[in-house]
Amino acid sequence: METRAAIAVAAGKPLEVTTVKLEGPRAFEVLVEVKATGICHTDEFTLSGADPEGLFPAILGHEGAGVVVEVGPGVTTLKPGDHVIPLYTPECRTCEYCLNPKTNLCQAIRSTQGQGLMPDGSSRFSTLDGDPILHYMGTSTFSNFTVVPEIALAKINPDAPFDKVCYIGCGVTTGIGAVINTAKVEPGSRAIVFGLGGIGLNVIQGLRLVGADQIVGVDLNPAKKDMAERFGMTDFVNPSEVEGDLVPYLVNLTKGGADYTFDATGNVNVMRTALEAAHKGWGESIIIGVAPAGAEISTRPFQLVTGRSWRGTAFGGARGRTDVPRIVDWYMDGKIEIDPMITHTMPLEEINTGFDLMHRGESIRSVVVY
Amino acid sequence: METRAAIAVAAGKPLEVTTVKLEGPRAFEVLVEVKATGICHTDEFTLSGADPEGLFPAILGHEGAGVVVEVGPGVTTLKPGDHVIPLYTPECRTCEYCLNPKTNLCQAIRSTQGQGLMPDGSSRFSTLDGDPILHYMGTSTFSNFTVVPEIALAKINPDAPFDKVCYIGCGVTTGIGAVINTAKVEPGSRAIVFGLGGIGLNVIQGLRLVGADQIVGVDLNPAKKDMAERFGMTDFVNPSEVEGDLVPYLVNLTKGGADYTFDATGNVNVMRTALEAAHKGWGESIIIGVAPAGAEISTRPFQLVTGRSWRGTAFGGARGRTDVPRIVDWYMDGKIEIDPMITHTMPLEEINTGFDLMHRGESIRSVVVY
Ligand SMILES: NC(=O)c1ccc[n+]([C@@H]2O[C@H](COP(=O)([O-])OP(=O)(O)OC[C@H]3O[C@@H](n4cnc5c(N)ncnc54)[C@H](O)[C@@H]3O)[C@@H](O)[C@H]2O)c1
Ligand SMILES: NC(=O)c1ccc[n+]([C@@H]2O[C@H](COP(=O)([O-])OP(=O)(O)OC[C@H]3O[C@@H](n4cnc5c(N)ncnc54)[C@H](O)[C@@H]3O)[C@@H](O)[C@H]2O)c1
Repeated sequence: METRAAIAVAAGKPLEVTTVKLEGPRAFEVLVEVKATGICHTDEFTLSGADPEGLFPAILGHEGAGVVVEVGPGVTTLKPGDHVIPLYTPECRTCEYCLNPKTNLCQAIRSTQGQGLMPDGSSRFSTLDGDPILHYMGTSTFSNFTVVPEIALAKINPDAPFDKVCYIGCGVTTGIGAVINTAKVEPGSRAIVFGLGGIGLNVIQGLRLVGADQIVGVDLNPAKKDMAERFGMTDFVNPSEVEGDLVPYLVNLTKGGADYTFDATGNVNVMRTALEAAHKGWGESIIIGVAPAGAEISTRPFQLVTGRSWRGTAFGGARGRTDVPRIVDWYMDGKIEIDPMITHTMPLEEINTGFDLMHRGESIRSVVVY
Repeated sequence: METRAAIAVAAGKPLEVTTVKLEGPRAFEVLVEVKATGICHTDEFTLSGADPEGLFPAILGHEGAGVVVEVGPGVTTLKPGDHVIPLYTPECRTCEYCLNPKTNLCQAIRSTQGQGLMPDGSSRFSTLDGDPILHYMGTSTFSNFTVVPEIALAKINPDAPFDKVCYIGCGVTTGIGAVINTAKVEPGSRAIVFGLGGIGLNVIQGLRLVGADQIVGVDLNPAKKDMAERFGMTDFVNPSEVEGDLVPYLVNLTKGGADYTFDATGNVNVMRTALEAAHKGWGESIIIGVAPAGAEISTRPFQLVTGRSWRGTAFGGARGRTDVPRIVDWYMDGKIEIDPMITHTMPLEEINTGFDLMHRGESIRSVVVY
């Protein structure tokens, strides 16, 4: 079949919106009509060329929602008409990782996914001339139709609006999951969130959800304050307005340091501040942000010996097929909010505008609606 | 009263063994006759002048065992004749830290202890001329008699031999506690221990105690192999004999990385190797070693985002009054071994020999027997 898609032709170039060929689903694969997709920093990271593992030409996009159109042989858990969210972290439920309750990093299809291919080692996408185009993160939601492995699809509530819950495919789950799956924040905790963008805001609403007592937000951009307060932030700190070192300021503000701190900036200096602002004895610092290639974190080991711990999270520690449908239900039940974070929507033809808005820091989330 | 003691007169100088004056116990203090004391790296760290917080003149020593001679007003949990191990990490059971199950770092007397003083801000030790001498870590076990706060004494089985269980005052508890309290290692785990000295050997026997399947020991000194095997090590790695990078070698040896890794060297480069040799998805690396002043650990944050965690431990995460008596019982019941690690004993007059043996790497533990 043919489908409209935005192709990343080369690093640093705008996406090219055009018609491509899409082969039908093979065994254990599913053809999905994507109804909406968010534009996330990870897409931008790859498109810019900053990701050393980025491959071109490829169809990016990993924050989508849509409807199952056709299933390949052997698919048993999905049928045409099911509403789904594609998962860049699959959940096969049989690999060593899925069977270990400490991790969500299913490895079942990792190597082919990293090469931009389906699990059988081939691509379903090609140009009208027949030249192959790579998949991206196993999802390629910047195409109106896409083929996704069965184990990388979460079946969701069919009443959920695609143009909102697509955001659960990455940002919402990453932020809320960092709180509930990775940090396992207890009610009454004090927390600090560094970076109040699309991820940080979801960390904040995750903290509100679990009953944190103090939720400090830190951002260099004072324009982020109002939105963060709306999602539960109790204290705002702009580092450029703090005299002297930020760590003692934050330790003082949280009465000895925060029980949990989260980096949602991707800046390695911020990650150090986040660790050191965690409480002596028990404070945990969670890295969510993705740092530039080659950048390193550092601190004195004394920070750890005196009881702080340093951890990270990918996709919020969520097991997608299990956890994503629950988060969709939480949205439908009003336990979490998404709508105010979707600041812009656009058709696929204008997808490059979404990247421009991100570069200018004007959007929280832009969503392409097919 | 007067007592024999070894005084650290200045950084880098040998200890001076002499007679000093000791005041009796004040309120909530206890006079202890020290029967035996180990010589630990932390004593050496301070004596050498490398510890920026080291103070002189002081009576060092923090790994002792002895008998209560006299209790001060208000002491309710100990009486003359009780056998005790002094605790450099006290357990008041009422401070914010003691009441938080995530930490053992009781803060009740921390500031005075750090200044070499009893909780009321004064010292019980002085020269025969009346010049004050400082306490050290609240314990000062390099004195035949010492005064210790009640909350810093663990009451132990009176049948336990002082010249062995004194080692539980630091090394044994630090190593075993890192496994059982900090890492909470599960049976069947794979682990790597870096550094097979007095701490590392106890990590190894802790791993054996909890039923680890694979216990890899890493040390530059091949002479450490036999003793480590005796305590449960299953594989020995000498980094100087590994071609290429140590991390992939260890990851391969542990079939994907270790579930738990422990640094017991104090070398920040080893700490990085330990983190990176931990298993993707769930590996935890625990820092036990104390690094030189100013040294920093570093790694790519990707190591944490893909599921490794970096933590530290002080006194093995043990709450001394509660946990130390249990470890003494384990020794008495034959669940753990200590005797082979006490490689040298000596009278107080020869304490400097113990430091010489440590410098030359000839001892695991030297114990002064009064
Ligand atoms: N671990 C994961 O699974 C995962 C998933 C998605 C995104 N991410 C990463 O999370 C990070 C945040 O993503 P986002 O979409 O929220 O980005 P964003 O650009 O929307 O938000 C980042 C925020 O950080 C603020 N900031 C930048 N430097 C700062 C500093 N030094 N101090 C304080 N604030 C600072 C910015 O003003 C901005 O508000 C990115 O690095 C992204 O790659 C990680
Ligand atoms: N966190 C705590 O509560 C605590 C308590 C006591 C001691 N410590 C620290 O634990 C550390 C170990 O103490 P110890 O008494 O066992 O010391 P030790 O000197 O007896 O043993 C250290 C071992 O590490 C080995 N080693 C050194 N460099 C190495 C390298 N690059 N690679 C592999 N092996 C290497 C040495 O050969 C030696 O066998 C010290 O830093 C000490 O200060 C920490």
